[in-house]
Amino acid sequence: MTLPNHFELIATDGTARTGRLTTPNGAVRTPAFMPVGTAGAMKGLYWREVREAGSDIVLGNTYHLMLRPGAERIAALGGLQRFTGWQGPMLTDSGGFQVMSLSELRKLSEHAVTFRSHIDGLKVELSPERSIEVQRLLGSDIAMQLDECVRLPAERSDIERAMQLSLRWAERSKRAFETAAPGYMLFGIVQGGDIAALRQTSALGLADIGFHGYAIGGLAVGEPQAVMLAMIEEAAPLLPDDRPRYLMGVGTPEDILDAVKRGIDMFDCVLPTRNGRHGVAFTRFGAINLRNARHADDPRPLDEESNWPSTREISRAYLHHLVRSGETLGAMLLSEINIAYYQRLMQDIRDAIAKGIFSDFYELTRAKWARGDIAPLAG
Amino acid sequence: MTLPNHFELIATDGTARTGRLTTPNGAVRTPAFMPVGTAGAMKGLYWREVREAGSDIVLGNTYHLMLRPGAERIAALGGLQRFTGWQGPMLTDSGGFQVMSLSELRKLSEHAVTFRSHIDGLKVELSPERSIEVQRLLGSDIAMQLDECVRLPAERSDIERAMQLSLRWAERSKRAFETAAPGYMLFGIVQGGDIAALRQTSALGLADIGFHGYAIGGLAVGEPQAVMLAMIEEAAPLLPDDRPRYLMGVGTPEDILDAVKRGIDMFDCVLPTRNGRHGVAFTRFGAINLRNARHADDPRPLDEESNWPSTREISRAYLHHLVRSGETLGAMLLSEINIAYYQRLMQDIRDAIAKGIFSDFYELTRAKWARGDIAPLAG
Repeated sequence: MTLPNHFELIATDGTARTGRLTTPNGAVRTPAFMPVGTAGAMKGLYWREVREAGSDIVLGNTYHLMLRPGAERIAALGGLQRFTGWQGPMLTDSGGFQVMSLSELRKLSEHAVTFRSHIDGLKVELSPERSIEVQRLLGSDIAMQLDECVRLPAERSDIERAMQLSLRWAERSKRAFETAAPGYMLFGIVQGGDIAALRQTSALGLADIGFHGYAIGGLAVGEPQAVMLAMIEEAAPLLPDDRPRYLMGVGTPEDILDAVKRGIDMFDCVLPTRNGRHGVAFTRFGAINLRNARHADDPRPLDEESNWPSTREISRAYLHHLVRSGETLGAMLLSEINIAYYQRLMQDIRDAIAKGIFSDFYELTRAKWARGDIAPLAG
Repeated sequence: MTLPNHFELIATDGTARTGRLTTPNGAVRTPAFMPVGTAGAMKGLYWREVREAGSDIVLGNTYHLMLRPGAERIAALGGLQRFTGWQGPMLTDSGGFQVMSLSELRKLSEHAVTFRSHIDGLKVELSPERSIEVQRLLGSDIAMQLDECVRLPAERSDIERAMQLSLRWAERSKRAFETAAPGYMLFGIVQGGDIAALRQTSALGLADIGFHGYAIGGLAVGEPQAVMLAMIEEAAPLLPDDRPRYLMGVGTPEDILDAVKRGIDMFDCVLPTRNGRHGVAFTRFGAINLRNARHADDPRPLDEESNWPSTREISRAYLHHLVRSGETLGAMLLSEINIAYYQRLMQDIRDAIAKGIFSDFYELTRAKWARGDIAPLAG
């Protein structure tokens, strides 16, 4: 059954695309970067900063939220937007990835995955149907199917088994989503590890079932970037052209640029906030480690031409001091600076595609990153 | 020698006073609460929030700043305001209190205190002259004399020796401050532990030397509140009426109210930010522990009549979740909420004194705190 399409393609430039995805809680300009608010909060940022930085949509983690504070509780409190105060679209993952990476004593069957909560040790069962139920209770604008993500490197037989299970779970997820209110969306997830033929089978199988959008999962899990890009090239062309394509858990600014070039529309990653907490700023000069002693006496800002006030106004010396002192303010400022840089990059990407100059933008942006940071002050 | 007076008394009500202290970086409305930005940053708050919450002046810790990033470095970067971005008056302590509480292997002589830095283990000497030099390098609007603060309970002989040493250091501090630019201020510090006669000697001795303002130190170090209030009653009346009086390291909202009643004009304390990080909110209903399960399903804000948006708009359920999950945003929101409550309290105190209704305000405020939080939702 073909599901309604809420995605509008505005322009393409080569394989790169820019468009607009309409959700019950607002529109998402694509290519879009979704900051990750794991447990209903963005680490180190107020929601208003997430918005001001240019984020249209954020991601919440079903695994964390179902364990604490609980999906039924959030539903009773009016859903994730009402609960958190984030006024905009929210995508939730299925919980599967965190079950694999965070929980103990998990057991996988055809029916479901069972695990012990990393918070209180209680046994929890997560089936495709329960995952959809939880995401609907949370009020997600975009729900993800439950899948099995295999850590690479892995045996072909394991990758294939997980991919086939994920396809069967995709069908069950779609059935469980049938009664969802209009406008809400469900995405299927392409699996298949680093094996081209399996990625193709998965993509074609999902397209056959039919979803509002399609994610490519199981990448950025340790494989070389070339493998990730090759898998995108296998899967993306087999997914329906008129639907959004979401590359899960990616990535660095470089990864994003290369994936957009291959037709990806949506991204999520903890990198800007996690690296911010570790003293690293993302800028048009590339990644800058503020912990480095070269910044200790440098009164210059990270980037005096930035459109973001903290990037343009706060000295490297102060940021260096905050990072070295372990002050929360350092993590707050760098997280905000990084989300703002990511969203600025996405806006520039959208503009370049709309103007048909994405190739030039791609080369120029990479050249600037490669050139690196401004020269240290003459000491 | 009488120093110029930058303090203007606007109104008194009983022993309580309201006034205005003019510094090179702006005016301070008194009674004033100074949030503590230990190492050049307020934990969990942006400087703009500190300002928006109603803070006129903040406190920086000389001990932390001289060790990292270093006073000479901050001076080269244009002073504390330029370095941190805080646009307003800043008071710095002398460093003495932290030497006593944080550093190892300290050795006290008539000349100075020497200690090992808790950061890199290097040996550092802090004399009254060096403390003033450091504070002038930092660009403090208000510098404090170096003193010796004795932890209570203590022997009378120890308390007296430390008080007399502090008086001699007060004289040396004043001499070291003689060449400071006009408008900058130096405060002496009353010591004398919990012994009335020693407090009197100290206050009279300092008044004889003559300072821009006077602090009462060595309180809120573990003694009962009644002892603290009794010591204020001994010292405050002996200090020049026309100069500001600052009670160091105090305190709870209750302490502040009681000290204002006894003629105190300035306060500083880490309590609103520290307790915020531990899940406690200060409100007109008293202190509220958000960790408590009664808040888990409560969609109501902390105080729907508050003038501060986060206090009025964010649900107890969400705050509870953030605190339980250890999310940075919980610490950020509660720190902001608490500083805003403290500053609201100070504004209400100033208004009550100006209107001559401080006694009524005192009783009413304490009654509200005693009544406690609103009733839990009927389950």
